[in-house]
Amino acid sequence: MEQLYSSKLLENAVNEFSKLPGIGKKTALRLALYLLKLDEDAVKQFGQALIQLRSEVVYCNHCFNLSDTDVCEICSNSRRDHSIVCVVETVRDVMSIENTMQYKGIYHVLGGVISPMDGIGPSDLTIDSLTQKVANGKVSELILALSATMEGDTTNFYIYRKVKQFPVIVSTLSRGLAVGDELEYADQVTLGRSILNRMPFESTIKTN
Amino acid sequence: MEQLYSSKLLENAVNEFSKLPGIGKKTALRLALYLLKLDEDAVKQFGQALIQLRSEVVYCNHCFNLSDTDVCEICSNSRRDHSIVCVVETVRDVMSIENTMQYKGIYHVLGGVISPMDGIGPSDLTIDSLTQKVANGKVSELILALSATMEGDTTNFYIYRKVKQFPVIVSTLSRGLAVGDELEYADQVTLGRSILNRMPFESTIKTN
Repeated sequence: MEQLYSSKLLENAVNEFSKLPGIGKKTALRLALYLLKLDEDAVKQFGQALIQLRSEVVYCNHCFNLSDTDVCEICSNSRRDHSIVCVVETVRDVMSIENTMQYKGIYHVLGGVISPMDGIGPSDLTIDSLTQKVANGKVSELILALSATMEGDTTNFYIYRKVKQFPVIVSTLSRGLAVGDELEYADQVTLGRSILNRMPFESTIKTN
Repeated sequence: MEQLYSSKLLENAVNEFSKLPGIGKKTALRLALYLLKLDEDAVKQFGQALIQLRSEVVYCNHCFNLSDTDVCEICSNSRRDHSIVCVVETVRDVMSIENTMQYKGIYHVLGGVISPMDGIGPSDLTIDSLTQKVANGKVSELILALSATMEGDTTNFYIYRKVKQFPVIVSTLSRGLAVGDELEYADQVTLGRSILNRMPFESTIKTN
């Protein structure tokens, strides 16, 4: 049933909140009433942080990661290895990999994966820019770090075909059991592949 | 582990979102990235709706309900019965009762219930204003619609003692089985009370 509000301002705020993904009318009302309990300054700061994010954030000219400046912090960091490029789908994937603290190269954000079902073709992604980078000869290794899905695999293969004419090593994330996984609960495809692609035991000692 | 952000603006927006109740860092990041996909105008509208809500909404001079004007829509509606006052804890309770479309009187929002454990005493609530209304003699019935908790009962009794000297009917919400409840799953206290306070069958035919 339609909720009745005693205040248009409240109704407006609830409607705005409920446009966010995963937030229904009830949660939106809870959030709006919560804001009313905060200091006016705190709410102003909240609203302005969101407006400022949308109006001022840019995409890095080099890697298409989110950035406050034309070239992002990672691309402008001279202590990172600019010859290794990790190809990811989204800005979020950059954060996930950065959080592992295991990677010292740079990134290239595709903006998605090739998915004919969703109407996303190669030209909707930043693949041309990636190919150009490789063609320029400054990239020695390309790490394809896309989702382990059909679309991810397709995109991997598409990129591979585009860059294989150039002298670049193309690698991909290792696949297999996740750390902590029990065999009993691993899915068959993952388990099957991890037997086929078994690795020397010595290498697992080194990496841990 | 601390999340690393490539953009201070993004980090700022995530921090602001995660101050909201029930929203953690992961959800906050999802929401912030969602805003980036919206039109700049839509985000501006979103942020400003929240700021405006906090800066412009007021509490009704009469009933302390949220309102865009000094006197809320309910209190200024001459078609409502101003002699019946329903006493509720919060603005949200007003909405819940309004949604039932069963009530045509006006409200009085207490702002909570007496709860010594949380340091809330009668003077933190709008009880004085309520007593004054009753003392003025324009209220014929006071409906106590507070939570069916210890604190709610305490507050009910406190208000009752304050107003019993005046010629006003004090009633409270009926308690018993909820519509649709099965006896098997009803709690013992509710079931026990609903036997003690059983009502004439004819009255249930009338109200349904």
